[in-house]
Amino acid sequence: MKSIRFVNITALHTDTIVALATPHGTGAIALIRVSGNEAISIVEKSFTTKDLKRKALADKPGYTIHFGLLCDDETIVDEVLVSLFKAPHSYTGEDSIEISCHGSQFIQQQVLQLLVKNGARMANAGEFTMRAFLNGKFDLSQAEAVADLIASNSTVSHQVAMSQMRGGFSGKIKVLRENLVDFASLIELELDFSEEDVEFADRTELKNLVISIQRIIERLVDSFEVGNVIKNGIPVAIVGKPNAGKSTLLNALLQEDKAIVSEIPGTTRDTIEDEISIGGVLFRFIDTAGIRDTSDVIEQIGVNKALQAMQKSAIVIYLFDAHALGIKDIEVEVEKIKEHIGNSQLLIVCNKIDTEDLNALQKEFEKLDNILYISAKEAMYIEDLKMKLVAMFDSRTINVTETVVTNVRHVEALRKANSALYKVMEGLNKGIQSDFLAIDIRYALDALGEITGQVTSDDLLGNIFGKFCIGK
Amino acid sequence: MKSIRFVNITALHTDTIVALATPHGTGAIALIRVSGNEAISIVEKSFTTKDLKRKALADKPGYTIHFGLLCDDETIVDEVLVSLFKAPHSYTGEDSIEISCHGSQFIQQQVLQLLVKNGARMANAGEFTMRAFLNGKFDLSQAEAVADLIASNSTVSHQVAMSQMRGGFSGKIKVLRENLVDFASLIELELDFSEEDVEFADRTELKNLVISIQRIIERLVDSFEVGNVIKNGIPVAIVGKPNAGKSTLLNALLQEDKAIVSEIPGTTRDTIEDEISIGGVLFRFIDTAGIRDTSDVIEQIGVNKALQAMQKSAIVIYLFDAHALGIKDIEVEVEKIKEHIGNSQLLIVCNKIDTEDLNALQKEFEKLDNILYISAKEAMYIEDLKMKLVAMFDSRTINVTETVVTNVRHVEALRKANSALYKVMEGLNKGIQSDFLAIDIRYALDALGEITGQVTSDDLLGNIFGKFCIGK
Repeated sequence: MKSIRFVNITALHTDTIVALATPHGTGAIALIRVSGNEAISIVEKSFTTKDLKRKALADKPGYTIHFGLLCDDETIVDEVLVSLFKAPHSYTGEDSIEISCHGSQFIQQQVLQLLVKNGARMANAGEFTMRAFLNGKFDLSQAEAVADLIASNSTVSHQVAMSQMRGGFSGKIKVLRENLVDFASLIELELDFSEEDVEFADRTELKNLVISIQRIIERLVDSFEVGNVIKNGIPVAIVGKPNAGKSTLLNALLQEDKAIVSEIPGTTRDTIEDEISIGGVLFRFIDTAGIRDTSDVIEQIGVNKALQAMQKSAIVIYLFDAHALGIKDIEVEVEKIKEHIGNSQLLIVCNKIDTEDLNALQKEFEKLDNILYISAKEAMYIEDLKMKLVAMFDSRTINVTETVVTNVRHVEALRKANSALYKVMEGLNKGIQSDFLAIDIRYALDALGEITGQVTSDDLLGNIFGKFCIGK
Repeated sequence: MKSIRFVNITALHTDTIVALATPHGTGAIALIRVSGNEAISIVEKSFTTKDLKRKALADKPGYTIHFGLLCDDETIVDEVLVSLFKAPHSYTGEDSIEISCHGSQFIQQQVLQLLVKNGARMANAGEFTMRAFLNGKFDLSQAEAVADLIASNSTVSHQVAMSQMRGGFSGKIKVLRENLVDFASLIELELDFSEEDVEFADRTELKNLVISIQRIIERLVDSFEVGNVIKNGIPVAIVGKPNAGKSTLLNALLQEDKAIVSEIPGTTRDTIEDEISIGGVLFRFIDTAGIRDTSDVIEQIGVNKALQAMQKSAIVIYLFDAHALGIKDIEVEVEKIKEHIGNSQLLIVCNKIDTEDLNALQKEFEKLDNILYISAKEAMYIEDLKMKLVAMFDSRTINVTETVVTNVRHVEALRKANSALYKVMEGLNKGIQSDFLAIDIRYALDALGEITGQVTSDDLLGNIFGKFCIGK
């Protein structure tokens, strides 16, 4: 197969790059990464023993650690540990060094400046992983999984990213592609003998193959709905009259996980305050606080914002105040909500049960399906609500141990491959010429190859790795 | 010498501790530190090859790196690099492991939880460094310097902390102490022969020694004024009439360094927005924005807040608007400021020169000492102002390559030692009995020993290491 892989990009990758690999901020330790042909000699220029004698690294074996000082001429920048990796046995496949220094921002800056002075260049976002890809350490889909892994914030998203990084998804795509490649070469062979009207490739076998590949691709495309939800959280809208207790409920839900969640600044999302991982699944609560304060619930529901929130959600929680509304009101409201809810699942939640007789409430609302009774304020039955949410997720999803597509780029490539295969199928049915068949098969192969990076372009790479964090 | 060192504390330090060593947040890589007798076996429990076979670490040499998976039973938590350090050749002096994992907060939490499940305990603040101290890897003053180093945010504070960590200060204190110890033992020997009225210790020599030690201690105590300024920044107050351009000046000064400075959250200080490192020296600008808006400058200066700011400052910048005030007004104001300024240095800065004739201004204000002409808005001559500030700092400080005391605890111990030595001197002059002399010498020795941790207590250690960050 013809590859349009990294024409300019490789040219850029002969120099040595450096970046801070640990999060910004002050910590006990910071890690600075250096990679490239000159990585070892650049660090050696400033690496000394405790009594300021030059300390060699080039003659040491890889996967070893060396204690010493980093010095800028006479000035000691820091006492550091240097981890040595030699090409090709490193993350990038190049000679690499990781410097573990004291976690002062000032020292981090000094170390970076020193290495730049010695001849390194500040790395671009994702450049270490891009080099790993270019050096064949892993394919494109695996490289993308590294970014997903770093951004993962729930058990499920973590598992999916881990499986993708370890090559689960790539393996699947590669098998599909290899099967097609065999046929492609036979068809292309026919082109060489086009004068003679021979058929090397068995058309029936090819049809069966295309059908089976399409089936797998369609399942993968379908898995994206789940994959997307895994990666970005299951959207849940909490709707209800003002004072039903929406904010209190959100706080009660966030309570336990807040400590972990609030420590995630600067990930790709802009706001994280309404995300909670429950039972290993990420839920994203959509703000409907913007609903204007009107006592007419029906009108209120008509407000655009709440409508949008409901339509974007996989689950809609309709929350009401046990004191304020009777069964008649609720039934009217629930009907109204159902009109707008689309494919979302509805969960009815009766709030403020702490000051009511639960039995009486349960009797009053027994006609309603899928209803829970809680007190958000007193955090009563919040655990039950969480379990219910997880159960509602499970009921609508496939098993995550199967391969799940979480990446828009992948799903687009799969769709492209599928429509090319559709044309192949059409062509086979119409008995068209091999040269047209060959073109469509090539399209399908290219689309599949884009996923793993067997077929790629500079633009694509720039696009993918530009979304990485610096230092990865 | 009797030592009251770590009676309970050692008992606490047989278990294995774990903590995140890199800053909180999401990055490319996070580092998790494990230290203690069981460090290696605790990590081994979950460390496997790529095909999930258990991977041994105990039989590997120290200062080596090992690639593998961290697994919680069947679930892969992450692909990691494990750095192995064997007692006593590690930071803590114990068996230690550093796990370099993907920088997702979720993964960090999973790894920590896994290691706790395997038998490690979450470390307390500073516990790794405390163990290093208890295992004799360095003394107390060096341990404190580690914290200073992490907090360092200017060339000078970095240099001072580095020198202290490398034992510069400790060495000085130890020499003082050793000299005294010799005499102490002779004097204590006299106690055994107290019936016989002998003098083993030459009183004149002792006097000379005490005088020379006191001289050194006093110089060290004096250096604290500079040391404190190095560590916490040189306080600079910008005063002047409303609309003189104080905020604009501050912004102009902060401009260049803002990028670096604003990335320092969570250091010990509450606010950092007004700190700038200029020429390697940290300046801390004290907010005088609270001055109420009055056109009477004299009254304005009388406002408490500005007065306090001026008195707390090493440098007072008096800023005025070239358009608004003439030489007569300025002279009145400068006189008034000088009354309140104490030992601070005054720098007069004429602002808004961009729309004035500089020559005319210079002629008008030529009588004023120490005056600069700038435009904060147009960032004109801001560089000159910075250089001037650095020069003003230099003129009032000793050479920072000398030993500088930056720690309140140290300066208090030095003062205690000095007052004990004063009593020794008094006793020597009065010819008092050896047993009283011995007590005072012991006090001085203990005070000096507190600095390096040769004499210490659990409370003191708890106090010192409690201020460290977790993971150090």
